[in-house]
Amino acid sequence: MKLVCTSSDLSTHLSLVSRAVPSRPTHPVLGNVLLTADTETSTVRLTAFDLSLGIQTSFSANIELSGEITLPAKLFNDIVSRLPEGEIALEEVADGQGGDSAIAVLTSSSGRYQVRGISAEEFPELPEVTIEGAIQLPAEVLVQGLRSTLFATSSDETKQVLTGVHLTLGSDSLEFAATDGHRLAVVQTSNQGEEEDQQPITIDTPLQFTIPARALRELERMLASRPAGSMVALQFEEGQIVFQAEGDRLTSRTLEGQYPAYRQLIPNQFQRQVTIDRRQLLSAVERIAVLADQKNNIIKFTIDNDNQQLSLSVDAQDVGSGRESLSAQITGESLEVAFNVKYLLDGLKALPTSDIQMQLNTGSSPVILIPLGGVKMTYLVMPVQIRS
Amino acid sequence: MKLVCTSSDLSTHLSLVSRAVPSRPTHPVLGNVLLTADTETSTVRLTAFDLSLGIQTSFSANIELSGEITLPAKLFNDIVSRLPEGEIALEEVADGQGGDSAIAVLTSSSGRYQVRGISAEEFPELPEVTIEGAIQLPAEVLVQGLRSTLFATSSDETKQVLTGVHLTLGSDSLEFAATDGHRLAVVQTSNQGEEEDQQPITIDTPLQFTIPARALRELERMLASRPAGSMVALQFEEGQIVFQAEGDRLTSRTLEGQYPAYRQLIPNQFQRQVTIDRRQLLSAVERIAVLADQKNNIIKFTIDNDNQQLSLSVDAQDVGSGRESLSAQITGESLEVAFNVKYLLDGLKALPTSDIQMQLNTGSSPVILIPLGGVKMTYLVMPVQIRS
Repeated sequence: MKLVCTSSDLSTHLSLVSRAVPSRPTHPVLGNVLLTADTETSTVRLTAFDLSLGIQTSFSANIELSGEITLPAKLFNDIVSRLPEGEIALEEVADGQGGDSAIAVLTSSSGRYQVRGISAEEFPELPEVTIEGAIQLPAEVLVQGLRSTLFATSSDETKQVLTGVHLTLGSDSLEFAATDGHRLAVVQTSNQGEEEDQQPITIDTPLQFTIPARALRELERMLASRPAGSMVALQFEEGQIVFQAEGDRLTSRTLEGQYPAYRQLIPNQFQRQVTIDRRQLLSAVERIAVLADQKNNIIKFTIDNDNQQLSLSVDAQDVGSGRESLSAQITGESLEVAFNVKYLLDGLKALPTSDIQMQLNTGSSPVILIPLGGVKMTYLVMPVQIRS
Repeated sequence: MKLVCTSSDLSTHLSLVSRAVPSRPTHPVLGNVLLTADTETSTVRLTAFDLSLGIQTSFSANIELSGEITLPAKLFNDIVSRLPEGEIALEEVADGQGGDSAIAVLTSSSGRYQVRGISAEEFPELPEVTIEGAIQLPAEVLVQGLRSTLFATSSDETKQVLTGVHLTLGSDSLEFAATDGHRLAVVQTSNQGEEEDQQPITIDTPLQFTIPARALRELERMLASRPAGSMVALQFEEGQIVFQAEGDRLTSRTLEGQYPAYRQLIPNQFQRQVTIDRRQLLSAVERIAVLADQKNNIIKFTIDNDNQQLSLSVDAQDVGSGRESLSAQITGESLEVAFNVKYLLDGLKALPTSDIQMQLNTGSSPVILIPLGGVKMTYLVMPVQIRS
């Protein structure tokens, strides 16, 4: 292997794939990044894979000699990211030790580095998903759906499917859902972008898969900077899903197990509606949260129809108390209802519009927050019981 | 106590004094900030004190009723910093519980908060330093001296005087020194600023004190944003030092014990000089450090007089190796010398000029780095012995 590329190309792409490198690899080669140079395509391909999440990317380079090698991801990235702007040469040399060891020599204007790697043969293959006819989805639809649901996944690894986002893909709809058992975020979108030349999708039975949040966070990051109108190809097989966006590819195992039937948790009708400015409510909840943090994280909402006013209050006896009132458009009878302030804050931050509506029935039945206009999102929280 | 002020004034000043509030107070009242309102001066004074470091600041406000109260620093600051811009009212009310408890009511446009505090009588007095005729020093001189020495103090609390910066104040000189036993930073400055109307300082015997790094970091922060030409008044007594800059006051205990006679560590003559671009050298050392980190943190310098070149290298056998060469102006014979890369990096980052000079004798005697032009700073490191 022998190639010349720019330090910035190598550094940018190394940073991208490095995110799939486990911090504590179960096998040494998984701590490495696979570098494949191909004279025919004049590209360098980088691959990292932790056996669950895999990221692959490629970029143009001047390849003198095809070849492949794996190099310690963090060490190599740390050196390359510190190199001055300019061309660098990378070459595999014999290490004279035999075995699965390999040495890459990196030469830049500033100096020369030898980095010991592991033979590319040791590196596991990324799963190949062979089903033909990948589904094309607009990147912006995926990013919006992920951004509005990922935060609601569980970070507790024992919670299995709840550590992922559940996707349901129909002929003309794409739905994202995430819940950690305490709250639920659902986003319903069209799977069509604004580009008119997108191929229609034909699906008889909606496809469903639950994908680990860790992989989807990387997908969101990978897609966030794409130009408007970019498309992502999605392919899947039992247990595996692949997203391909131009030169970048992300593979992930899917989570096994039945995802909760979350639709039936969302009431069909609500007796009360509170329409309010999202930022004002968020700021007030953030202030009240300072005191709620001191006690049990419970914040009380007093919905006052007569005065068209929503009051927030907390009473942390030994520490202090606080009360804020906001004007709101209220329909339905007055009500007191309490929430865990953390779940409320997460939802208020994730809702994407300036005005939102809270819909509720009683102080002990599910409450939903929805954005007014824009994306179709539902954020469900259960109230906390309060003694009066 | 009853007053009206802006939320931003209160928030800014609370943030400043909060830095002297211990995270784990030994007595509850030390976790509080003392708030003193005075109708006569129309000022609010805030004080925090951990029994070693004290910070006091004041700002103008509309005081209706003089009084004082202590309030939980973090909680109070967290609420105030989240308030919308605008006027707020603060009032002490009876809590009906008697004892040393006290309640403050904060009213803003957005709501009303009650915060339970502790009677001001419980709060320890900041040390009063009574010696008349404080010494006036330019803020910029202090900031420059601290910035160039603080990093070299020891963070190991058992190292006593080495956890502080040693100041030596003469009639027309001010010297800063810091060492953790492995390296030494010394800055010599004039104690006169560029203002012509500064009072001359008359000191018979140079004054010496060692001040905890923690207090000086806060002093540097406090002074960094002062306008050019600002003066700081310095007062001291056995065991205590006070810095006063307009409305802000910082008090600190001084560290007891003999400070090392560091002057005698610095050789008077050097056989070799290497003059080099600081940023280039810093970047190269940062790259080489990636590999040095993998082994013993040792970096080798090869000073090559014939080629007027400085080469840096590291050989971390199992991981890799690296070598960079930089052109330099070299006087004296060629030499190999090795350093702990961490101490070298600290010094290279702290030196304030674009060109620097390394001065050395042998591979086993102290090496100094000095800036060329600007502040008079000396950074001393001991080479590491290498087997050839």
